[in-house]
Amino acid sequence: MLQDTISAVSSPRGKGGVAVIRISGSNALQIAERMFCPSGSLPLQATPRKARLGSLLAPTASIDWSPVDQGLALYFPSPASFTGEDVIEFHCHGGALLTETLLGATFAAGARPATAGEFTRRAFLNGKLKLHQAEALGLMLEAETEEQLLLASSGLRENSPLTKALNALYDDLVLLLSTAYARIDYPDEDLADLSPEEVLTSLQKISTALSALLKSFRTGHAVVEGIQTTICGRPNVGKSSIYNRLIGENKAIVTDIPGTTRDILEHTAQCGEVLLRLSDTAGIRDLQSADPVEQIGIEKARQKLADAELILAVFDGSEALTDADTALIASLKATLTDNPRAYLLFVLNKSDKPAAVSPEQLNQAFGKAVPCVAVSAQSGEGWSNLVSLIQKTFLEGLLDLSQNAIIMNARQNACLVSALEAVRRAEKSLSLGFTFDIVSSDLEEALESIRQVDGRSVNEDIVSSIFAHFCVGK
Amino acid sequence: MLQDTISAVSSPRGKGGVAVIRISGSNALQIAERMFCPSGSLPLQATPRKARLGSLLAPTASIDWSPVDQGLALYFPSPASFTGEDVIEFHCHGGALLTETLLGATFAAGARPATAGEFTRRAFLNGKLKLHQAEALGLMLEAETEEQLLLASSGLRENSPLTKALNALYDDLVLLLSTAYARIDYPDEDLADLSPEEVLTSLQKISTALSALLKSFRTGHAVVEGIQTTICGRPNVGKSSIYNRLIGENKAIVTDIPGTTRDILEHTAQCGEVLLRLSDTAGIRDLQSADPVEQIGIEKARQKLADAELILAVFDGSEALTDADTALIASLKATLTDNPRAYLLFVLNKSDKPAAVSPEQLNQAFGKAVPCVAVSAQSGEGWSNLVSLIQKTFLEGLLDLSQNAIIMNARQNACLVSALEAVRRAEKSLSLGFTFDIVSSDLEEALESIRQVDGRSVNEDIVSSIFAHFCVGK
Repeated sequence: MLQDTISAVSSPRGKGGVAVIRISGSNALQIAERMFCPSGSLPLQATPRKARLGSLLAPTASIDWSPVDQGLALYFPSPASFTGEDVIEFHCHGGALLTETLLGATFAAGARPATAGEFTRRAFLNGKLKLHQAEALGLMLEAETEEQLLLASSGLRENSPLTKALNALYDDLVLLLSTAYARIDYPDEDLADLSPEEVLTSLQKISTALSALLKSFRTGHAVVEGIQTTICGRPNVGKSSIYNRLIGENKAIVTDIPGTTRDILEHTAQCGEVLLRLSDTAGIRDLQSADPVEQIGIEKARQKLADAELILAVFDGSEALTDADTALIASLKATLTDNPRAYLLFVLNKSDKPAAVSPEQLNQAFGKAVPCVAVSAQSGEGWSNLVSLIQKTFLEGLLDLSQNAIIMNARQNACLVSALEAVRRAEKSLSLGFTFDIVSSDLEEALESIRQVDGRSVNEDIVSSIFAHFCVGK
Repeated sequence: MLQDTISAVSSPRGKGGVAVIRISGSNALQIAERMFCPSGSLPLQATPRKARLGSLLAPTASIDWSPVDQGLALYFPSPASFTGEDVIEFHCHGGALLTETLLGATFAAGARPATAGEFTRRAFLNGKLKLHQAEALGLMLEAETEEQLLLASSGLRENSPLTKALNALYDDLVLLLSTAYARIDYPDEDLADLSPEEVLTSLQKISTALSALLKSFRTGHAVVEGIQTTICGRPNVGKSSIYNRLIGENKAIVTDIPGTTRDILEHTAQCGEVLLRLSDTAGIRDLQSADPVEQIGIEKARQKLADAELILAVFDGSEALTDADTALIASLKATLTDNPRAYLLFVLNKSDKPAAVSPEQLNQAFGKAVPCVAVSAQSGEGWSNLVSLIQKTFLEGLLDLSQNAIIMNARQNACLVSALEAVRRAEKSLSLGFTFDIVSSDLEEALESIRQVDGRSVNEDIVSSIFAHFCVGK
């Protein structure tokens, strides 16, 4: 596909010492020759990848093309560039008007404005970057935690653990299919038939690897998207104090007045290496409330519980269980029936005071065993137990984010779930006695799903939505 | 002076595709070796000015130095770098946390955080940049108008018109002084005495050149700092409409209710190539007002008039002069006595209606001729006359900002005023019959003043205050 030439400011907008303008496409060099006049005798194209000092020209309202800055130009010839196309980078002084003026000059010289993510998209289309690497790059730009940074960095490496795992799965499937097809297509070649047992053994190896990889999404999700967490409990058990200790700042108003925390606040918190997306809820006090404002709060809280992946049910460990506590426990039982994937954790707060409730009492009230930690949100007592329990639950033991193959997002996960389902269908068909040519379509489907993860097989809409999340200039 | 090694993010802060981290100083290369692992076999120092791909490493909380990004590194060996020292630039992906993490890595590897403008200051100290060029660079980063950009760009050039003019003045003075000293110091060499007339001719040439250069400050000031402009007039003459047409937006509330525009608004406007700093004033209606809020407005308006460089006195040309108009004219007479440098312009607004006031009437009321333009702020009629009158007045004909030597700021102007005063003192002494060795101290002082413009002679406090205005990373 013949591509036109695009340009954009690749550095962040704003005031700075230096700004980077990037041009990519077959006319990049021609545009650079129009607007950059290098010092020294060599033309820019004679010095690939070298920072050349020179004058940057732009057309202004009053004067035709004239120098507006002294800066650097770098020429990255195709294919050894970020996009795989001819790329020019100008490094100019970081003035906002100057940067805009020089960007305007690239357009006047024949480039067109790049759309969001278009440089990276071209890199992908030109085979410089796999689709899951582009997603790692997106995470790198957005990363807000060190864990996200490490995962992104690992995912961006050419030979990342995820790339290796995907390639291994792909190669195993291709080998199996090609071996089987060879026997089907060339029956005269006297090749020994693949026995169903041999095929089944191969498939089991593949499905085991796929299952293991799929497990890593729990870690990827906990690190990248974060765990939807709801803190609930009757008034005055210390929900806000627990919320505040988790986020490490005083975002919720901690007060002794019942019903103070009426609006649902949202915040992210690091819990060890797990990212929590926290919503503080209005205390579920009454199932029906006369106050319409509280009604809304209660409804919101119910909704949050239905979506939660982690529910921290807080009790005041220094007071005997109240009717409100019992009502909460009953309501949580119903919640877990509707939302079985939620991980429920009982938090016995105020452990700095003499204990008046035991974990056993709570389990008895709930009807089955629920993990329980005693903490003091005020003093921090028992807090590390809470953190390590959450971490152990959500990280699946995959603590080394740069060494493990980790599925990073729901798209990758969905593709691999499809792949596993197809492999399992094939296993089942084989064990029911179907021949290989019957199950091969399932295996083709599994292969196709794996090809979608790294973008070897492309769904244009999905690719577009991935790159639309990038900024212009990337 | 042995310098330590500094580092900073040189691109603007925020989200972008790429960020630039700059390191300067004798340990720059050593730091790069710690945190950059180049692809390919050549070490970074073997490939000066070349963009090298590689892994960028940083120490993280959980893991010791490990790769966090793939990026580019460029090594600019001393002295052919921006600062004149060894400089390393890392180009990493533009994530905010990533950028901070890599900046932190430069500190961990031995750099210290750069202070505001420290890179440019080092460039100046190492003779890579003259002081007035550094000021042009500052203007370039801040430029908000095309004229500022052109002036900055011209001032930044190695052989800028201002540099040439300063060098010529400097050389003339040095030649005069050295010739005279030779004759004083070596009377036995039989050198012909410099006649007072010869010296005077030289001095007159110098003072003429200095005067011409000093005139350019009017242009520099009009382009860079802008002209403090006050619009005054009784209520309902259309001050706000004139204000709005100047700034091109609807900033002031235009209404027919007398006294509506009570607060002083401030805005900048382009008037041709002249930058106006506008303050819209409460209409000067009463000299005493009972309303304390209006009292404040009137006081502010008076203050603005006392500081103004351009006063646009607006009258309703379609109505006969009122008592309030006459009171304004009287008050403007007093203003001009106190503030004689102000340029007063009468604006006869509402020229789209039949004229009821003539320029002659206004001049008669004022007691002397004042430039007067008839305009309609509503329809735009006569507006270009207003613009060209203001432009002609403040630009001194120096319209080509990239070809003329133009003094850019008050500091440069003050130095050159001192120089001119010293030269004139010398001229006077000579014409009074004093000998050259008497006047030489004045000429030394003139030389010193010129050396201060380009920073050959340094006042540490002034230099510090210049660079303090730069951002960190520049």
